Amino acid sequence: MTPDLHPWAADLSDLYAQVWARLVRGVRDRRAPARHPTLATVTPDGKPQARTVVLRAADKGTGTLDIHTDLLSSKVADLRATPFAALHVWDAAARLQMRLESTVTILIGADVAATWAGLPDASRQSYGSLPAPGQPIAQALDYAKRADPASFAVLRLTVQTIDALHLGPRHRRARFDRSAGWTGMWLAP
Amino acid sequence: MTPDLHPWAADLSDLYAQVWARLVRGVRDRRAPARHPTLATVTPDGKPQARTVVLRAADKGTGTLDIHTDLLSSKVADLRATPFAALHVWDAAARLQMRLESTVTILIGADVAATWAGLPDASRQSYGSLPAPGQPIAQALDYAKRADPASFAVLRLTVQTIDALHLGPRHRRARFDRSAGWTGMWLAP
Repeated sequence: MTPDLHPWAADLSDLYAQVWARLVRGVRDRRAPARHPTLATVTPDGKPQARTVVLRAADKGTGTLDIHTDLLSSKVADLRATPFAALHVWDAAARLQMRLESTVTILIGADVAATWAGLPDASRQSYGSLPAPGQPIAQALDYAKRADPASFAVLRLTVQTIDALHLGPRHRRARFDRSAGWTGMWLAP
Repeated sequence: MTPDLHPWAADLSDLYAQVWARLVRGVRDRRAPARHPTLATVTPDGKPQARTVVLRAADKGTGTLDIHTDLLSSKVADLRATPFAALHVWDAAARLQMRLESTVTILIGADVAATWAGLPDASRQSYGSLPAPGQPIAQALDYAKRADPASFAVLRLTVQTIDALHLGPRHRRARFDRSAGWTGMWLAP
């Protein structure tokens, strides 16, 4: 049997700490897997959607994560109809899949003014493009980037559950619930 | 400006061909990014879910993809309630995000007997574990693998739309619809 390179996967509290350590690293390190999670939402007509996002903040203490978005992107319309998101990260080095169920608050205007003020100019160009993201255009480059604070939104994810799956010599899977104080329980993988 | 390494991203039909080439490579090559897409579904209570899956078949001609699963996994329950899935692949080398909206048929029993017969024994162990995937267990390894053809299902995804986003010197995004014969149109990224 292959030796287990990740002893943290055998203990619920170590596994929980590992998940948050990987998420926090994603915010700081552009090359970390958790830098670019996949965010799944439900469209207003009840269908699933998923897209890559950039993780901008992760706070273990409050169990919250931040993602920045153009207010006119379809994910915002999804979240207005169904304010829940599933965040997915596969960390290959850790052999760890993280699945986070969250409630989502859409922050705009005065609530995000300080965040906007702290963004580099190049980053601001991602918010406010014309036409809005997802609109049909005649040619591929028929759009303009534009930094528009009125188009900037922060999605604040309040994590409700974490499902962590470690692929080791034998697989281990655990679930952590906010409502249970994050104590965790093992699940059959 | 950085030179564009991916000229296929500037032409709708080339881009469409590239998406399918990457998907087909995922079936053949265990290391290809499309080998392990993220599958998003909607739970019976209307919330999003996402998890890694293994791409087992990809047919450009019919626009279909196959994924194998344990019949008792939660994704099957999700798909019984809402037979739609979103498949997400980020191909870093191609700088290409692929988002595929699909309808899903759950194939079981006689319809998958030939597929089951062709699976290596080690693969069969992934279908029929006890307790069922996602059930609480007292200790991390309190489960047994078991090859059970009655627990084996094939999810057949009939792709309805493809959203392809290429991150180049300037980003390009296109949408391809089955209902439009896959001709494609450009979207603002």
